[in-house]
Amino acid sequence: MCELLGMSANVPTDICFSFTGLMQRGGGTGPHRDGWGIAFYEGKGVRTFHDPAASVNSEVARLIQSHPIKSHIVISHIRQANVGGVCLVNTHPFQRELWGRHWTYAHNGQLTAEIFDWPLGDYIPVGTTDSERAFCWLLGEIRREFPKAPTLAEEQERLSLFIQERCDRLRSLGVFNMMLSDADRLYVYCTTKLQWITRRAPFGEAVLQDVEVKVDFGSETTPDDVVTVIATEPLTTNETWHPLKPGEFIVFRLGEIEHLSEENPPLPVS
Amino acid sequence: MCELLGMSANVPTDICFSFTGLMQRGGGTGPHRDGWGIAFYEGKGVRTFHDPAASVNSEVARLIQSHPIKSHIVISHIRQANVGGVCLVNTHPFQRELWGRHWTYAHNGQLTAEIFDWPLGDYIPVGTTDSERAFCWLLGEIRREFPKAPTLAEEQERLSLFIQERCDRLRSLGVFNMMLSDADRLYVYCTTKLQWITRRAPFGEAVLQDVEVKVDFGSETTPDDVVTVIATEPLTTNETWHPLKPGEFIVFRLGEIEHLSEENPPLPVS
Repeated sequence: MCELLGMSANVPTDICFSFTGLMQRGGGTGPHRDGWGIAFYEGKGVRTFHDPAASVNSEVARLIQSHPIKSHIVISHIRQANVGGVCLVNTHPFQRELWGRHWTYAHNGQLTAEIFDWPLGDYIPVGTTDSERAFCWLLGEIRREFPKAPTLAEEQERLSLFIQERCDRLRSLGVFNMMLSDADRLYVYCTTKLQWITRRAPFGEAVLQDVEVKVDFGSETTPDDVVTVIATEPLTTNETWHPLKPGEFIVFRLGEIEHLSEENPPLPVS
Repeated sequence: MCELLGMSANVPTDICFSFTGLMQRGGGTGPHRDGWGIAFYEGKGVRTFHDPAASVNSEVARLIQSHPIKSHIVISHIRQANVGGVCLVNTHPFQRELWGRHWTYAHNGQLTAEIFDWPLGDYIPVGTTDSERAFCWLLGEIRREFPKAPTLAEEQERLSLFIQERCDRLRSLGVFNMMLSDADRLYVYCTTKLQWITRRAPFGEAVLQDVEVKVDFGSETTPDDVVTVIATEPLTTNETWHPLKPGEFIVFRLGEIEHLSEENPPLPVS
């Protein structure tokens, strides 16, 4: 299994604090030694760092921890390999272009080998993981159903429902905790383990679980900032994180929930 | 205009020495302050670093300079913007997937606005540069002509000739110095400025042009290593670099020349 970390914010925000917690689990407090990666969206652009080494030992991870990159969407993944060897080509997040947008995806879980029989569309895996195979299948399905990008709100809602339905199918093959983004929205699907928290004014102090670090968000934010963080396990000890239910699907945009799977009503905001 | 740096090697090799020279030109000894990027292939995998800031001031560039990443193909680019704003989405190298391979591309030069009228295939630009537009056009053309990856040597030769012919068309729109790779080969096309050097045993000492650094390759290599470096301008002062002619196209594989455009015979090896 692996660990996921995502962020959706209404202002460019750095993820140094949460990433500092996550990287400890990459061979430190957690067993996820088989590589890590992170993607930062800046407008429609995205920059990605991949390292097949354990994050707790990674020079690149140390740089990201100490060198704030402001972003409105982040997807990060630390890997404990099951299907597919430990190498750069199998290191999440994975990316492809659709409609002139960079799509980024990371997966935690394991799917049965049946995924390798599902017919692909226009995207072909480069590596050997079930995760990248599922991504190529999913994006191929989206491209087939939506040859052009949704422009109207109702088209976007139809796209969200379509992604949700395809994630339900993937979940039928095993554990499928997933984050997906097109530079505008962060799509999150849960089979077993994902939790989220939205931070907004009045901001308080947060204390990391995996390493002795705390931050006072009040001194780093403005009153209008809205920042949602999603992670496999809560990263802080003094805040209330909201667990997603099995089969729950949430679309975040600018830090807020835009779409939520119907059978799972919103959890109360603390 | 911009500067390009490429490498093709028969063993995983770090590019720290050449990159140290190149990065000085990104706001130091050269005017290319508008971002930089580098892609390292490791097997079929590729990791890319992009930074919209000047390389001479970049923390990420310093990391790459000091933290050797062993690779058999590298493509790097430092940018002085002409078409398209200075932002992450316009920062080279650009990437797309074709046939389950990551294709990476960087361009130095400028094309007329006519490039924006050329019909695209399956790849759509995310940013606003002439460079990315030309890449999407080129890769769309390859995909249309070769729906499947070449497997035989003669198919590969046909692909090389096809890329060369499409580059000739792009050159009709302006300056088109380009590097392109599919993880196996490094395709290089010259309109105005590109030079290459192949280093092999007996290895000697090399002295950088842009900063006081020298390296003794003899102490860092084995006798079988073959490493070709291609750059906009020679990076060293004490070696003989071979200029490409206008319209010259070379395909490098494992450090050696695999294909060379016919009208431009190979230059003598020093």
